[in-house]
Amino acid sequence: MTSIDPRRIVAAKRDGQTLSPADIEAFIEGYLSGEISDALASAFLMAALIRGLDGAETLALTRAKIASGQTISFTHLDLPTVDKHSTGGVGDSVTLVFAPLAAALGLAVAKLSGRGLGHTGGTLDKLESIPGLRTDLTPEEMTRQVDAIGCAVAAQSAMIVPADGALYALRDATATVPSIPLIAASVMAKKLAVLTDLILLDVKAGSGAFMKTVEEAKTLARTCLDLARGLGRPARAAVTDMSQPLGEAVGNALDVAEAIAVLRGEHRGRLRELVVQFAAHALAVASHVDLEEALARAGACLDDGSALNRFRLMVGAQGGDARVVDDPAAVLPAAPVIVPLIAGWAGTVSAMQTDEIGLASGGLGAGRARKGDPIDPAVGIVVRAKIGDQLETGDMIGEVHARDEAGAAEATRRTLAAVSIGDAPVTAPALVHAWLEADGKMTGDAG
Amino acid sequence: MTSIDPRRIVAAKRDGQTLSPADIEAFIEGYLSGEISDALASAFLMAALIRGLDGAETLALTRAKIASGQTISFTHLDLPTVDKHSTGGVGDSVTLVFAPLAAALGLAVAKLSGRGLGHTGGTLDKLESIPGLRTDLTPEEMTRQVDAIGCAVAAQSAMIVPADGALYALRDATATVPSIPLIAASVMAKKLAVLTDLILLDVKAGSGAFMKTVEEAKTLARTCLDLARGLGRPARAAVTDMSQPLGEAVGNALDVAEAIAVLRGEHRGRLRELVVQFAAHALAVASHVDLEEALARAGACLDDGSALNRFRLMVGAQGGDARVVDDPAAVLPAAPVIVPLIAGWAGTVSAMQTDEIGLASGGLGAGRARKGDPIDPAVGIVVRAKIGDQLETGDMIGEVHARDEAGAAEATRRTLAAVSIGDAPVTAPALVHAWLEADGKMTGDAG
Repeated sequence: MTSIDPRRIVAAKRDGQTLSPADIEAFIEGYLSGEISDALASAFLMAALIRGLDGAETLALTRAKIASGQTISFTHLDLPTVDKHSTGGVGDSVTLVFAPLAAALGLAVAKLSGRGLGHTGGTLDKLESIPGLRTDLTPEEMTRQVDAIGCAVAAQSAMIVPADGALYALRDATATVPSIPLIAASVMAKKLAVLTDLILLDVKAGSGAFMKTVEEAKTLARTCLDLARGLGRPARAAVTDMSQPLGEAVGNALDVAEAIAVLRGEHRGRLRELVVQFAAHALAVASHVDLEEALARAGACLDDGSALNRFRLMVGAQGGDARVVDDPAAVLPAAPVIVPLIAGWAGTVSAMQTDEIGLASGGLGAGRARKGDPIDPAVGIVVRAKIGDQLETGDMIGEVHARDEAGAAEATRRTLAAVSIGDAPVTAPALVHAWLEADGKMTGDAG
Repeated sequence: MTSIDPRRIVAAKRDGQTLSPADIEAFIEGYLSGEISDALASAFLMAALIRGLDGAETLALTRAKIASGQTISFTHLDLPTVDKHSTGGVGDSVTLVFAPLAAALGLAVAKLSGRGLGHTGGTLDKLESIPGLRTDLTPEEMTRQVDAIGCAVAAQSAMIVPADGALYALRDATATVPSIPLIAASVMAKKLAVLTDLILLDVKAGSGAFMKTVEEAKTLARTCLDLARGLGRPARAAVTDMSQPLGEAVGNALDVAEAIAVLRGEHRGRLRELVVQFAAHALAVASHVDLEEALARAGACLDDGSALNRFRLMVGAQGGDARVVDDPAAVLPAAPVIVPLIAGWAGTVSAMQTDEIGLASGGLGAGRARKGDPIDPAVGIVVRAKIGDQLETGDMIGEVHARDEAGAAEATRRTLAAVSIGDAPVTAPALVHAWLEADGKMTGDAG
């Protein structure tokens, strides 16, 4: 960075020019080394947000982020390794079921996860509601565990793409978050720094997602897949519905209980359906199994207890109380106050402000407004009603699990306000809008 | 600022929305109070630069800057007070002549000036090359001096529009300078915080100016005049040529010597012509004199010694050695090394990289790369050739005044490289492209 003026790079993007990969890499390096100020970096981010970044620029940004830290490889295992990432939603417990299910199907899942922030939940927070369970595994511990039982879910190390953490904090502070290239680079740098044989992306679209429309979500999915292809990494993406919570539970221990019900083959809702699709696509790509066959095998592993068994082994291997799989209620923390959610009038559920439901759960203590805030694993919200459901006045559509009466009242008010009930008939939204392959080609709308 | 999230304001401008005056004022206040970070402010500046600011937004920004500091009034004097401002150029000594000439015409000039930066010179630096001359006058000292002799030129106090200094430094650091609304707000806040009866603007266009084209300069002029009108202040603007240095001298003592030659009626070039136009427009507006008549009277005051006498009084009143007006060479500092600039081949002067000539003079020590750097008053460059001049090989087109031989050689090389000589005939550029009144109407192209 000593030979170039970084303001020249910012001025070029400001004026709508395309930057060279070398300029982008030098800029990111300069920012991380402290040579480039937060102020100049935020001017760059705003210019990039408004003017856009093309594929080569986005790839250079992603490479620069990866180069800022360590990379970890899980490709030397005997089994094909699969990573899976969601762009963030509400009631999204896919990973809790996906990891043991994929393991039961003969794949290896070494998954580095994050924590919840804002209206979205986090897989680590959910898992840690199981007493004793550790997520601070070293890469060596993860490798040994995946070798032994086929799956591990652990916290992403701060040594992986440190540039991303610094840039994300700056974007959050400077109104420069909503840019598809910046989001794609952030999502994919973390995935691409961990070497696996297949990356599956779940790009959420709707009121509980960062992408509010299916079209935006498809653009983000294609941009992410282009980055995977640019680095020679096999990947697939699904664009999935987040116009309502995916599962019924929006919390932490509540989500674990729901995930266990799916793993026990007892719960047959949208969460099961989506997990089966992800596991089947993983199997189809990694083991060259026909997709119809893969879907059948994935469903069977939920029904025959083999996925549940992998979950039991994973919880035990990570120090958690494995009795949770047999008697969740006895092991998981429970909230002292449980209040039913009652439909105030008759009609059809027409829409949900899904992010508001996530924030209402966060308000109970299940989520965090700022990084590092503590959470309460026991509290949360269960919403059983789905868009398109017919309700009568007085129907119980879910419940609030709270630490106290005041919190329960507030969350009840917010959740009921976030569920719209109307007179006109409403069609339930598709669960999966599209599956996209690494070349951006759509492979159908329901896999 | 406690009740609103300033990121919302930045996000609105990012998304191309128009901001309310209250939002802009709150944002600037928040920045000055330290509640808003440099990073968020630079994101705002980049969004404003790319998305633009309309007239009402630019006026709100200007008002917020004015409100950040003190205002000074010179409207209680007996004579009509005139302020004059140049957007910055090379070889621009207009103020040195304009202030005493306007005083000789019966107007009052209370001018707060700045220092040179980058390729542009500064009036204060030039004046201070006169031994003993002080520019740190208080408003009370200025008022007394203007009352007594009709003119005073002093340093702008840091108490006037402190927001502008802070924002300009941030813009310079973050590649957010080249925005007409941001430039106009910066120029005009400083002028509008000083109450006078008339503001004259000299908006420069060409290779030595910030605005490279006449059209850009006209847009800046109109934007500045709109701000004056928005605050009810009479103003006129000229868009003038800066495709070559205005005068012949590009330095400090050298400029003072040239200004004195104009004041003595001895020097009849473009500098004299432009000063006469500015003084005549001031007289025409402030004293309701017909412009033709005003032009004649302004010329006469240069030829009869009355303007020179006002300059003598001004220099004396500000503590300078007033003998400078009679024998500049005996009083002004002189450079030890003087080297002629020789045309390397025959042809017509077709263009000049005027900013490069300013930077070459700065390289000798006449200017400063950073605020606060010291300058050498004696050094500089004299360029006598003008665009359209016919040259023979070996013609002397000016000279370099340097501290040492090495500096002289470097400045000679840079200056000769900045003067293009070609075969085709070239028409000399107009000195004044347009005069604009406060309603943006053009009043002709040569006054």
